[in-house]
Parts: sequence; C-alpha cells; structure tokens
Amino acid sequence: MTHKLSINRERLLGQLEQLAGVNRLADRSCCRLALTDADRRGRDLVVHWMREAGLEVRIDRIGNIFGVRAGQTSEPPVMTGSHIDTVATGGAYDGCYGVLAGLEAIRTLNEAGHRTRRPLVLAIFTNEEGVRFQPDMMGSLVFAGDLPLEDALSARAEDGALLGEELKRIGYAGEDCSELRPRAYVELHIEQGPILHEEGGTLGAVQDLQGISWHELIITGTSNHAGTTPMRLRRDAGYCAARISVFVRELARRMGGSQVGTVGVTRLVPNLVNVIAREARITVDLRNTDDGLLNEAEEELRRFVELMMREEGVTIEMRQLARTPPVRFDEGVLGAILKVAGTLGHDIRRMTSGAGHDAQMLARICPAAMIFVPSVGGISHNPREHTEPEHLALGANVLLHTLVELAQ
Amino acid sequence: MTHKLSINRERLLGQLEQLAGVNRLADRSCCRLALTDADRRGRDLVVHWMREAGLEVRIDRIGNIFGVRAGQTSEPPVMTGSHIDTVATGGAYDGCYGVLAGLEAIRTLNEAGHRTRRPLVLAIFTNEEGVRFQPDMMGSLVFAGDLPLEDALSARAEDGALLGEELKRIGYAGEDCSELRPRAYVELHIEQGPILHEEGGTLGAVQDLQGISWHELIITGTSNHAGTTPMRLRRDAGYCAARISVFVRELARRMGGSQVGTVGVTRLVPNLVNVIAREARITVDLRNTDDGLLNEAEEELRRFVELMMREEGVTIEMRQLARTPPVRFDEGVLGAILKVAGTLGHDIRRMTSGAGHDAQMLARICPAAMIFVPSVGGISHNPREHTEPEHLALGANVLLHTLVELAQ
Repeated sequence: MTHKLSINRERLLGQLEQLAGVNRLADRSCCRLALTDADRRGRDLVVHWMREAGLEVRIDRIGNIFGVRAGQTSEPPVMTGSHIDTVATGGAYDGCYGVLAGLEAIRTLNEAGHRTRRPLVLAIFTNEEGVRFQPDMMGSLVFAGDLPLEDALSARAEDGALLGEELKRIGYAGEDCSELRPRAYVELHIEQGPILHEEGGTLGAVQDLQGISWHELIITGTSNHAGTTPMRLRRDAGYCAARISVFVRELARRMGGSQVGTVGVTRLVPNLVNVIAREARITVDLRNTDDGLLNEAEEELRRFVELMMREEGVTIEMRQLARTPPVRFDEGVLGAILKVAGTLGHDIRRMTSGAGHDAQMLARICPAAMIFVPSVGGISHNPREHTEPEHLALGANVLLHTLVELAQ
Repeated sequence: MTHKLSINRERLLGQLEQLAGVNRLADRSCCRLALTDADRRGRDLVVHWMREAGLEVRIDRIGNIFGVRAGQTSEPPVMTGSHIDTVATGGAYDGCYGVLAGLEAIRTLNEAGHRTRRPLVLAIFTNEEGVRFQPDMMGSLVFAGDLPLEDALSARAEDGALLGEELKRIGYAGEDCSELRPRAYVELHIEQGPILHEEGGTLGAVQDLQGISWHELIITGTSNHAGTTPMRLRRDAGYCAARISVFVRELARRMGGSQVGTVGVTRLVPNLVNVIAREARITVDLRNTDDGLLNEAEEELRRFVELMMREEGVTIEMRQLARTPPVRFDEGVLGAILKVAGTLGHDIRRMTSGAGHDAQMLARICPAAMIFVPSVGGISHNPREHTEPEHLALGANVLLHTLVELAQ
C-alpha cells in the first residue's frame, strides 16, 4: 500500500545542500538571481536529476521547466513544484525545498514501482523572486495566462539585460507547453514566517493568501532650522512620516484578524540633526486575506493622510506601487492535504500565507493549495533561513501522499 | 551730536553684495568653508576694507582677525563682529552682515570725526560654522580660553587637511592677541528664524540663547517579512523610531515656553517596502533657554526610550552628540541696545536665539548681547536667505549707536 511509502530523508537533504552550494557566497548566502549564469547552473543540476529520475523534461517559452512522469492514463496531470531562483542573499530552502521534495516524492514512487492514474508534473517556475526582472512570480503568471508572453520576454533588468535574450543565452527558451495545464496543483514551501515555529506547530495547510497593498507616500513640508523655528510654525515632513508609521501599526492592531501593516522604508531630506525635514518618503505595506477589509484599511490610510495634510500644512502624494487581491485556495486540495496528514498521524493546522507564491497564480487555472513547514525564527531571504531536517522530511512525505491522493 | 549719525545704506549693501560674490556658485549659494582658498579671498577682501577704514589689523593664533580703532584712552575696548565663513550652501548675510555693519559703523564714526573714549575692535572669528572643522564657533571659543589652542590647531577636516597647516597656507596664522579682551561685546546678526518676520517685528534684543542637547539613538529590533510576521511578534525598529519622533513633538508641545524638539535624521535598515526594519538610527535635537528644563526634557526622553525597550522588545543605544548650556546675555549691554533703539524710535523686542553664535563664547569673558534683524521666512543656510535692505540699515544704525553708548 502506498501509505507505507516514505521518502529518503538523507537523499533529500543531500540534494538541498548540493543545490544550495551553487554560487553560495562567503557569508553562506545563496545567490542565484533569475537567468544569470548561477541560475543556469542551478537549473542544469536539477534538470540532470530530473532525467536521472526518468522524467521527460520540457521547457516552455518563459523558461519554466516541467519534468513529466507518465500516468496510467493521459488525463490532465497533477502538478507540484516551486522555484529555484533566489534573492541576492537567499537561504537554502525558499523554493528549492518544494522542487526537490517533489523530485524525492517521484523517486520514491519510482522505487516502489507505483504508477498513479494521472501523470505527475514537477514544475520549476522562472523568476519567482522578481529581483532582477519584474514582476515577481513571472513564470507562473505567464503559465496561468495572466501576463502576455511578449511582455515578459521584453522585461529589462537594471543591468540592461533583456529577459528574452537572457533565456536564450542560458539555454532555457523553450516551446509551448500549455497542454500541461494541470488538474490540480499542490506546492510545498517553508513558511517564511514565525507562526508554526513560535506556536510549536509542525505543518500548515495553507487555505488562503493575503491580498497585498503597497503605497509610496511623498510628504512635502518646509525645511527649517531646528533651533529657531517655533513648534507652532513647523511643517515637518519627518514628523508626519512618523505619525503615519504609528497610525499603520494602530490600524493593524485595531482591525485584528489577518490584517498586518508595515512602514519598511523611511527617507528624510535633508536628513540632518538640526534641520526640520522638508521631504519624507515612506512606503506602506498593508495585507489582509479579506479584500473588503483590505479596501477598508486603504481607505482609513487615505483618511489619515488627509488629516495630516490639514493638521500639519504639508502636502502628501500617495502612489500605489502594487495591489493584489487575496487568494482562497481550493477546499478539495486542502481536504486531500489534511486527510493525508491525519492518516500519517501528523499535527497540521489551517493557516494563511503572508508571502506570495507561484501557487496563487496556478490557483487561477486549477484547484490549488499549499503545505507549509516551520521556518526557525520565521527567518527567510537570509542565509540564516533554517528548517529542522525532521520537518523537511515530514513535509516531503505529506507532499508524496497528497500527490498520490490527487492523482489516483 | 552722535545720535544724528546714520550709516550709509548703499555702501553697506554694496559691500555685502561684493563679499557674497566671493565664490558664489551657479545656484547663488555662497560657499566659503573655513580656511579654504575661498575663505582666504573673503578674508583678504574684508582686511583690505578694514585697512581702508584706518583700522590696525591684528591676526591671532587661531586666525581670528581684529580691526582696532584707537579710542581717547587705552582702556579695554568695546568689540563687535561675527564671522565670514559660510556653510556649503550659504546665503549673503549669515555672519557677514554683523562684520560689514560693524565696519560701516566705524566708517560712519570716522567721517563724523567722532572718537570714542574706549577703543573699538571689529572681530572676524574663525570657523564659526564648523562644517569643515569641528567644533563650530571655534575661533571665539579659543579666544574665550575655553578650547586649548593646540587642540584647535590639530583639528582635521574630512579632506585630511590639518587646521594649523591650513591657517599657515592661507596666511592667517598670527600672534597672541589676548590683550584685546573686551570690556563689552555686541553682535548684530540676522535672526535665522521666523519669529520677527512672522510677527511683523523689526528688531530683536537677544537676551538669551537656547541650551542644546543632541542625541543619536540606535534602535535594534529584528528584521522580518512584512507579510508573514503577525503584529504581536514584531520587534520593529522603524516603528519605535516613529514612536520616539512623535513623542519628541508631544514633549515640546507639552513643555511649551522655549522648548523645541526635532528628529531630523531617520535611517532604516534594510529600508525595503516588505521588510520590517531591524535597525533605525535617529537623532533628537532638544533646546531650551532653561538648563533645568532642558535636563528634564532629556530625562523624559530617556524614560520614553526605556518604555519602548520594554514594550517593543528592542534595544536602544542612546549616545550624546552635543550638549551646550543655555546662555543668558548681559542686562547692561541689553539695556544699551534697548535704549538706543528707543532713542532712534525703532520697534524692538526682547527675544531668544535658537541658533548658536560667537557672542555666546564672548559672554564667558565679558558682558555681551546681540541684536537681531528679521529673516524673511526664517530661511537661512540657504541661497534664498534674505533680509529687507531697510532692516539691514536699521540694524546697522542700532549697532553704531550701541557701540558709541558702550564705548563712551
């Protein structure tokens, strides 16, 4: 019976370590920005492993890699996967874990001689991180049909490189693969947040993903001498920036639920000890799993900005940088994950993802959901990113059996 | 009778314009950083004018310039003056106005054939601005005996230059002039703040000068993902910085009186839209004319910093960058200024200086006070610095008659 199957933990850990070693820097950072030579070396290594595992490797026109394992039928496949590009100072697990755990699941099925009814596809999506080329989650967005291929191919990096040319240069400009559109998609990922770790949880079944609202606020006041300007005559852009930062925290606390809010960027001009700032630029990141509530949060921010303008005599320009709606994952796929975890006797909880993932793009074209394992300290995008080996193995086993369940 | 004497407004304005033209930049900024070639050219020009006006020019060992006009007696002199070095983007009047108005007053006495009982000395103090070499107000501080000459001569600029060598290079390393220690000092200056201009005032008799407290605060929290980190698990250095900025404003408003408070610098690390800041560096500038109240303000800041550490789980290192006590000017000199303004029929008010001036150093060794004229919009350290010609002339006349009064 397949429910006795178990992945080979040491083999999975060994491959994670080997892939992390491709362009690992002196500070232990993994640096494989999309479509660089380092990314090519990472891709070549995993493609080599895919072929070793007997997968038929397909590349699509945006450079997504698909390793296809035939099923008993040629019905639409069940897909799993993630990405192997990294941020400039990445860790070993973000993305790579989902890809290599999927590969390990397939090897385990191979060794057991178990063939699923539906084909299985292991996907590596191009440029999930969006560091070198924008937008992020580009490969899955194109695959889902929500970004025209030509737009993606003409994206230009700050270093001047054109994405389409970089794809050809590294040998990953392929052909149309739209016939691989899956029947279901499941993605395994490290949480990249602290909830499972802080609360002693083992696994998460991700039921939804926050909607994201990013704004840049440019506050213009009047620069003046910090000693000679009475408090009542000030138009202090720095003070208004601080008031808005404090408001964002209060707003998130007051709304509660999944609402979070962050002012991550603050820049003052002239930024001198004895000069009142004439300009402040801040960013406001608001997230909620409920689109209506996220709209309300944005509206409250707008009202507070207007209050600041009236009270402090400054002008504030508010520019939207990004807005994505929340994603609700599929109850069928979630049910399969929860059932498998229960059968294997593992503690699992429904939870929300605060970060974006390729799964949210796949959710636009097929039933999809995600499995999370804990991130120690919630640390990610950092060489200190870590998940306990025991949790890495647990997640891979749940993925293995979820694939079997969905593909039967 | 001397009270009918009046300075020559056009001559004063012409010389102000000529001195402002020495290394004026394309954006109209005056740029004569202390002991650069530009500063030498400014010094050479004013020394030439001093000699034209019959003054005996003396240079002391820190490069202060003294133009001496003999009195009927050789009693200790009455001194006026200011500085002619500028910040990198200076205006035409900061410092230069006090020096050239003093020169104009002396020329007016020369033309009237009026010799005061005490000698008059016109002083130009070295490096008041403190941009290229620290500390600021260096020349007057050394003259007052509160900074050892050797320490000042060994000050090093960021460009590597040694102050003592720069003094020799530009020809302004002189001799001991301590016998010029004055009987009284009066300095005429633009307000560099908005009070006279905003309130329609004409002249200020400066009775005190704020004490200044500068701190740098280094706040260390934990960097984390803005989407995946619940509000209750955050240790957000940026939020703490904002709370302290808002507190500083509230503190100044609550204390009232002369208390002001400014957070002019805010720097976040990593300063990214979707990352909670792990570090924030801010500066806090607190000023009050009452040293006890200034101590209280500092103590309240310290208590709030401790509260933030407890409530937010961050660490905050608080480092004092500067602390100068308030200065109370001399009632005798102030009385002379007020009496002269009254006799001439000019509106004058007692006021406080929010900025530092050479007069505060001279106040340590002799009775001293200052006269302010309005700064349009309170703007200074800026090429848009402006004072109406009518007010420039008024201030110079009050200075002239105050010198006569003090030196009789």
